Amino acid sequence: MSTLYVIGVGPGDPELLTLKAVRLIREMPVIFVPKGREDGTSLALSIIKSIVKLDRKKIIELHFPMIKTAGTNALSDKWSNLAQEMIQNLRDADGAFLTLGDPCFYSTFFYLYDRLLRLSSSLRIEIIPGVSSINASAARAGIPLGLAGDRIAIIPANYIGKLMAEETLDHELQIWSAFDTIVFMKVDRNFYEIKKFLMDKGLINRSIYLSRVGMRDERVIHDLNKVKEQDLDYFSMVIVRNKRNG
Amino acid sequence: MSTLYVIGVGPGDPELLTLKAVRLIREMPVIFVPKGREDGTSLALSIIKSIVKLDRKKIIELHFPMIKTAGTNALSDKWSNLAQEMIQNLRDADGAFLTLGDPCFYSTFFYLYDRLLRLSSSLRIEIIPGVSSINASAARAGIPLGLAGDRIAIIPANYIGKLMAEETLDHELQIWSAFDTIVFMKVDRNFYEIKKFLMDKGLINRSIYLSRVGMRDERVIHDLNKVKEQDLDYFSMVIVRNKRNG
Repeated sequence: MSTLYVIGVGPGDPELLTLKAVRLIREMPVIFVPKGREDGTSLALSIIKSIVKLDRKKIIELHFPMIKTAGTNALSDKWSNLAQEMIQNLRDADGAFLTLGDPCFYSTFFYLYDRLLRLSSSLRIEIIPGVSSINASAARAGIPLGLAGDRIAIIPANYIGKLMAEETLDHELQIWSAFDTIVFMKVDRNFYEIKKFLMDKGLINRSIYLSRVGMRDERVIHDLNKVKEQDLDYFSMVIVRNKRNG
Repeated sequence: MSTLYVIGVGPGDPELLTLKAVRLIREMPVIFVPKGREDGTSLALSIIKSIVKLDRKKIIELHFPMIKTAGTNALSDKWSNLAQEMIQNLRDADGAFLTLGDPCFYSTFFYLYDRLLRLSSSLRIEIIPGVSSINASAARAGIPLGLAGDRIAIIPANYIGKLMAEETLDHELQIWSAFDTIVFMKVDRNFYEIKKFLMDKGLINRSIYLSRVGMRDERVIHDLNKVKEQDLDYFSMVIVRNKRNG
């Protein structure tokens, strides 16, 4: 019976790896690393390279297409193939699957979870939590995500429809106004719409743009009007402290 | 000019400390540790004890009363006094302030932030993120907090009013139903009310109770009906996967 450790490697700074992540990555003979492009490199792999020697390990790159996921058969087949490839490599060895940030926080690993167990009911899967991007970003911005009774909403911005449609906006507003903090994740495609929305609602001064926090080219921009086209990035967020109680 | 490092030590398992946390705690001559009771011990301190030698360090315990915070003068004075005590100890040395989990995620440190800077405008404050309890808990439960476009709501349960009041409940329901995952934090006092609510709404089978995750006496209970009085704890949560899209 093999064990697969699904390991969060944190948001980018190798020093934000946990002791447990480092120990397990060192111990594992097989390392699975996801990458978004067939011809690209794995960000997760680049994070651990400076901390862990990899030369005697079997490194298996898995290509996860970064496209939206609702009900596409091609994607489902793709994931089944990846699960199959992993199971083959876990037949006689334990392994680690690396995820950026934290495995439970929007990591693609969960598309494989059930598939892996269906292929091998004896496989043990253990998830090792990591520092997630929202914690690292709030730390860099010097603001709390929440305090005392504060409510926090996390909204993947790349999945919200057109905000400017009156009906959608009304509905969204009612929901968002019930929260003290709103984190819009992955704002690169909707940035100007979100900015206009925050401006209209008088929240622009309570909003901070951050991208690639913990990486060398990170951006922390307290004035959303100063965010330039070239600052926009897939690994981005806007944190709004919409504090209801003072 | 001194630097204060505000360091998340993770949810309980010392191996979930980051490399950065360990390095900085080792380097710092002065360590501030919060504790909830005047005569109690600091959980944060107990987490680092097995990893870092403390015998040559100045350990300063700070008593943070664990009571609700809205507008009490006595508390405000208490925090000002704690800030004063910290500044005195940072006069000729850098220091670390330890927080359980992640500093930006409901840590009491933020009550001191502005007060510290008012007392010493030259103080540098750097926040080092840590693994937060929600990530560790989802990992133990083997479920994602969010995937793809999922929306996540984080609700401190100890601050919600009586749910059973019709009006409150209607309002809450409308908000919660817009989220794929709801995390109720600190459910020990409201547990039976939250359980009844989840039962009424047909969400009980999608809910998991967890407490003290990463500590020796952790509980992960997939059937809320099996949660006993003695399982209830301040460091607890219920995660509800109320997935809207399948």
